[in-house]
Parts: sequence; C-alpha cells; structure tokens
Amino acid sequence: MGEMADKAAGAVSGARQWRRLMRLAELGAIPGDGVNRACLTDLDRQARRLLAGWATEAGVSVSVDEAANLWLRRPGQDEAAAPVLTGSHMDSQPNGGRFDGIYGVVAGLEALAALHDAGIVTHRPIEVVAWTNEEGGRFAPGCMGSMAWSGHSPLTTWSEVRDAEGIRFADALAEHLRAEATLPRRPLGPIGGPMGSPPHAYVEAHIEQGPLLEAAGRPIGVVTGIQGSRWFSVTITGDTAHAGTAPLALRRDAVQDMLRAITALNALTADPDDVLRFTVGRVTVAPNTSNTVAGQASFSIDLRHPDRAVLLAIGDAIAPTIRAALRTCDATVQETFHALPAVFDARVVAAVERAAAADGQGHMRLASGAFHDAQFLVPVCPTGMIFVPCRHGISHNPAEYATPEHLEAGTRVLARTLLDLAA
Amino acid sequence: MGEMADKAAGAVSGARQWRRLMRLAELGAIPGDGVNRACLTDLDRQARRLLAGWATEAGVSVSVDEAANLWLRRPGQDEAAAPVLTGSHMDSQPNGGRFDGIYGVVAGLEALAALHDAGIVTHRPIEVVAWTNEEGGRFAPGCMGSMAWSGHSPLTTWSEVRDAEGIRFADALAEHLRAEATLPRRPLGPIGGPMGSPPHAYVEAHIEQGPLLEAAGRPIGVVTGIQGSRWFSVTITGDTAHAGTAPLALRRDAVQDMLRAITALNALTADPDDVLRFTVGRVTVAPNTSNTVAGQASFSIDLRHPDRAVLLAIGDAIAPTIRAALRTCDATVQETFHALPAVFDARVVAAVERAAAADGQGHMRLASGAFHDAQFLVPVCPTGMIFVPCRHGISHNPAEYATPEHLEAGTRVLARTLLDLAA
Repeated sequence: MGEMADKAAGAVSGARQWRRLMRLAELGAIPGDGVNRACLTDLDRQARRLLAGWATEAGVSVSVDEAANLWLRRPGQDEAAAPVLTGSHMDSQPNGGRFDGIYGVVAGLEALAALHDAGIVTHRPIEVVAWTNEEGGRFAPGCMGSMAWSGHSPLTTWSEVRDAEGIRFADALAEHLRAEATLPRRPLGPIGGPMGSPPHAYVEAHIEQGPLLEAAGRPIGVVTGIQGSRWFSVTITGDTAHAGTAPLALRRDAVQDMLRAITALNALTADPDDVLRFTVGRVTVAPNTSNTVAGQASFSIDLRHPDRAVLLAIGDAIAPTIRAALRTCDATVQETFHALPAVFDARVVAAVERAAAADGQGHMRLASGAFHDAQFLVPVCPTGMIFVPCRHGISHNPAEYATPEHLEAGTRVLARTLLDLAA
Repeated sequence: MGEMADKAAGAVSGARQWRRLMRLAELGAIPGDGVNRACLTDLDRQARRLLAGWATEAGVSVSVDEAANLWLRRPGQDEAAAPVLTGSHMDSQPNGGRFDGIYGVVAGLEALAALHDAGIVTHRPIEVVAWTNEEGGRFAPGCMGSMAWSGHSPLTTWSEVRDAEGIRFADALAEHLRAEATLPRRPLGPIGGPMGSPPHAYVEAHIEQGPLLEAAGRPIGVVTGIQGSRWFSVTITGDTAHAGTAPLALRRDAVQDMLRAITALNALTADPDDVLRFTVGRVTVAPNTSNTVAGQASFSIDLRHPDRAVLLAIGDAIAPTIRAALRTCDATVQETFHALPAVFDARVVAAVERAAAADGQGHMRLASGAFHDAQFLVPVCPTGMIFVPCRHGISHNPAEYATPEHLEAGTRVLARTLLDLAA
C-alpha cells in the first residue's frame, strides 16, 4: 500500500495540472487574472468539453445526470463496489478567481490520470464529479447540483428561479442537457445510481479561501467540517420625500433606518474571538436619486458560525433586532437559506491526515469557513475535504491565487487519500 | 390700479387651470397619480406643444432659445420696456407628481389669459418661461436652462453629460431643437435678449414641497429666499473578500465603512431645530452579491441650509468627517454642486405680500427648502416666488397633491403681482 501510494503520488504532474487550470481560466477571463464563468452558459459547456476530452485520454468515462452534474468514472477491480467520489464545481463567482471550485475537479482528474500513468487499478471505482451551480451567482441559491443529487431538495425546487436576464433555471438546464445530449445519461442520486448504492466516501479538494494555512505555513488543511450558514433578505420601507424640504423629524427615510438596523446587527453579532462571520454584501436603494429621501432600502445578511447553538440563537435574533432598531420605517425579513454546521466523518479526516503525513506535507486540522458541495454529501456517505493555501486568504476576487506547488501538494494528498479509501 | 387688479384676479379661471394641469399630467402618467416626464423627451415635447397651443389662443407669442427654454410673450404698451418674467419648469422627477414645476408654467399662462380675457394691456410686456431640465433627473445637475440663460455657466458646460442610456445632453438638446425648428428662435440670455436688457423682475409660482403652509392653514407663501445646497458624491473603496472565510478583523468592508461615514455625518449635521437638511438618497454597492464582502460603496450627500455660514462650515467639514470615520477603507469625496443661499428682492417680496393681502388670502413669509430656477435669476433681476400648500408637504412622489382652490389662489396672487410689477 505505502509503495503503491508513493507511486501514485509520484505520478501526479503539477505542471500538467497547472497548464489545465490556466487553460480553463481563459474561459470567462476577466481583467486582473479573474474569471466570470456562470453555470449552464456556453463558457461552462466549453470548460466541460475540455475536461471531458482530458478525461477520455486517461481512460476515464464521462456521463451526465439530469441536474447536469458531470461524472468522470475510472473503473475498479470490483465494478459492483461502491465508488470513492471526489470533485467540486466548475462555475465561478461573477468577479471570481481561477481556482475556486475548478481546482477540486482538475485535481480529481489529475489523481485519476496519475493512477492511470502509474498503472494502478484500485479495488473500488473512483469517480470525479463536477457539481452544477455551486456558486449561486447566476441562479440562487448555490449548490443546486449537490442538493438535488443528495436528496436534500428535489431538482424542481428551483425550476422557476430566474437569472438577471429573466431566464428560468429549468430552461437553462434543459438547453444545457440538449447541448450535452451525446453524453451518456446517468440517473440522479446516490440511490439508483449506476451501482445502486451511495458512494463509499467523498473527499473534495479546494483552496482554503481563508488565511489560516498561509499564516501557519502549512500546505495541507485537513478539514474537520463546515460552519453553518443562514442568509436573510431584508427590505425596509419608508416614504420618498423631497430632500430639500422634508423636515428630518417627519421623514420615513429607508436609508437611515437601514443604517440603524445594520448598526444593531453589528452589535448583535460582535464576536471578540472573530469566529462569527457577519456580512452585508448587497444593498439596493429606491428610487436612488441624490435629492429624494429613499422610500425603500434592501440588504442581504450572510451569517456563519461553526457552532450550531450560536448559529441558531444569533440567526433567530436577527428579525427582532432589526425591528427594534427601526425608528420610522417597516421591515420584512426573509430567511433565504439555512444550513446547519456540518461535521466530517472521522475516518475520512483520518485518511486525509495519514496521506498528508505519508507525503511529508506540513498539515493542520481546520474547519471550513466557506460553503461547499461537501456539506450535502455528509448525510449520504463518509465525507471530508482537503484544503490548500490561497494567497492572503483572498477568494471571490480576481486576485485569488494559489501556487502550483501547493496545488500539486494537495493533489498528491488527494491521490493518496483516494487510493486509501478505494482499497 | 386696485380695480384693474381685481378684474384680472377675477378673470383667473381655476377650472381651466386645473383642466390643463390634469391634461398635462397624462403625459408621462405613472401609477398612483404620478408623473415621469424627463426633459427633452418626446413627452416633454408633447407637453410643450399643448402649452404653446393654449398660449396662442390667448394672444401670446411663442419662441425658444438655444437652451430649449420655451418663451411665451404678451406684449405691453411699451414694447421697449424690460418685461416682467414669470414661469417655472415642465420636466418632472422620475417618480414625481403632477404639480412640481408645471404649476408655475400653467399659472403664468393662466395669468396672461386672465389679462387677455379682462382686456387689460400692461405697460411692460409679460413673459412666461418654461426652463429646461430643472429636475436634473435625466441629465445632472438640474437647472441647466436657467443657469445657461442667466450666465451662471455656459451651455457647453454640460455637453458631455449623459443620461442613463448613454445619450449626450448636447445630442438630446440638438434633437429637441430640430423638433421645435418651426418656433421662432430667440437669443439665449438676459442681455442680448429681444429687448436687450434684463427683465424688470422675475416671480415664480410653485407648490411649497414642504409642510409649513398646510400646518399654518395659509394658502399663500410669500417666499423670502432659497436655502443653499451643497451636493457631494462619496466613493469608499475596500477589498472584496469571501463572506464565509475572511475574518472581520482583516476585512476592508466598504459597506461597513460607509455605515461609519454616514453615522459620523449624522452626528456632524444633527440640528435640534430641524432646519438643516441632510440626505443620503443614493447608495450603490459593488459587486453587490450577498456572499461577497463589498469592495466598493458609493453614496450621495444632499446638504441644505438657509444660513450661508452654516452651509459653508458644515459642508467643508464633510470630507474630513468621512475620512476620520473610516476604519479600513479609502474614500474619495467630490463636491458636485454648490449653491449659496439666495435672498429675494425686498420689492418683489413686498409686491407678492401686497397682492396676497389685496386678494384676501391668508399668507405668511417663508424660505424655500427646495431648489428652484428662481435661484439663478437673483443675480440678474429683482426676484421672488409665490408658494401654495401641498398635501402633507409631500413632493417628488406620485402622492404629491395641491387643491384646485389653492392653485387658483396662487394664480390670482400671481396675476395681481405681475400687474403690479408691469405697471
């Protein structure tokens, strides 16, 4: 086992992997080395075709399910055995980087290619999946592909969701599947999949999207779980008025009440340990002219915490905190997303840790601050993740960067982990 | 004189004036009894054609200048005498009402029609002007027509200003003048005008756009001046980051620093007497997605005060206050508009007051909170304004409303004032 794992890790080509990542980064390239590649677009399909081409070169078969999740399968000695699964996503944020998501897919293929090049046949099949719409940048929410596949929600849940141009998710998906009609179709879901059973395990490689590995100087993060998230959409309604005449005492100024609401939420979410994540990233004001008092102001809340009890308590306090903070306006508070913290399987965590140690890579355990498809695999099969550092922790930004060396280290550890789990 | 004034006031038809206002309100009507009629659009031209048609019925000649200001002239006994000028504007806010601006133009025409119907010929000519683009809703800033005419700024100042669709002001103006090519063209400006000299006086009728007259139960406001305005555009620049991973201590969150800046400005501008007007009406955030920390936030500041010293001191403190409030981001603060308080001419104020008293209308002196074209007439000729109440002080809003009775009272006082000034 140890010798075979060394051989597999040794066959990982950091150069090939980097070349492929840079080639994919051309599809949707934006200024500053960024990428804007929304799901189910023509750019997305070009990226998938590139990937599928590289996969078949490595003796890997390609199929697609009805959520447009793309599957690469390398056979095992026992084709009836539950496969080991890896992967991530290929879509990007609108103003995203070159590594978020796509690294986990390319790393999975690189691990399969390394096994192929090293002439290793595993006991279990190994599959790489590219989940549809993880980012939620075009169709909200994200993680639709993994949510539909894992049985978290039926695929039809989002049929009527529209993108900024008014295109329905169901229509974009149908168009996409027509474009990929030449690929073998595979049933959606872990039960009823080709092998009729859930995967043996799932392990996803990803850039950290945070600063901890870089700060600690360790190339490998052994991920123990994912913090929980709750998203809210808040609309504050007052009255428009003339900016030059309306006395401040008589105004129902939606911008000013939004200010009061966010200030109160800052106090509610203040965390001296800086573990809680509270973000107001989206603000929209109407009519949004300089000489009219705003009649309406909307904003988003993204709240995250690894501790379920904290997430529940703070999240439940959001609506009452907003209402208590308003002076003159009314507010509607809608929860748009709620995911409890996920705890990864001890066996997968241990397998990643063993692989990092065997490869001689500095490593540390940490929880994921970002949301990942892996979250939805937790109820389905033993699940874990491998992180590699990204510069200054920057992600969802064109400046996102990971070194070829760190990306290669992550894939070496992934190859060893897959071999371990597929034994 | 008193008898002639009674005759002129008696010939004012509140019913005809209301019918015309309601007819004009159909052009650009929006839900809730509102109007959206931007300057130099086809709707604007339709409104001008209606007005010009009514004007010629009353023996009034029509012309246009190169800023597209529309002029209605009723001859005097002495055609060489400096004319008395009244008027306002015909464009509306994007989400505006049926009375702001258009009332002053229709009232001016109604006063001329009353003189016509009463068979009165004044010593001086009387002119009604509809100033181009007072609102600044399509092309910023507002008051371009009166600024260009009064010599405040050359018309070319705004040639490159573009509307939301990217159309240049110069191109919209040229297209408009082509559409009105059949109208006699008149030179732009008080000097070099048809009579070669500034007007004898300017008096503008307008709804108050504030709550004071309604609260006092008086139908006529004798306006003593206009408070000063300073407008600023602020852009706060931080860094985008992943909402789930970036520790709050490491963020450069533009939304949060905008919050700090506005909170500090609220403290700077706090006024227990509620005379100062401070408004943040426009807020724009980028990239404006819920799970990305905002890298940029822009907002507008509209600051107004009747006291020149206060306006200068507070306005000059805005940029340093913003900079001191920022925790992690940078800010650019640009002053986009600066108009000192205007004080109206004592003779015009007295004439309006006499007219209101002679007409038996309850009246009071007050300063204008809103900005008006009259501001730019102050350096040119003796200037004043007449206000009528509007319901709850609401303006720049479809719910803007003034009663036919109050609008008639305002026009009776205007007719008497014009007769007085044109004697």
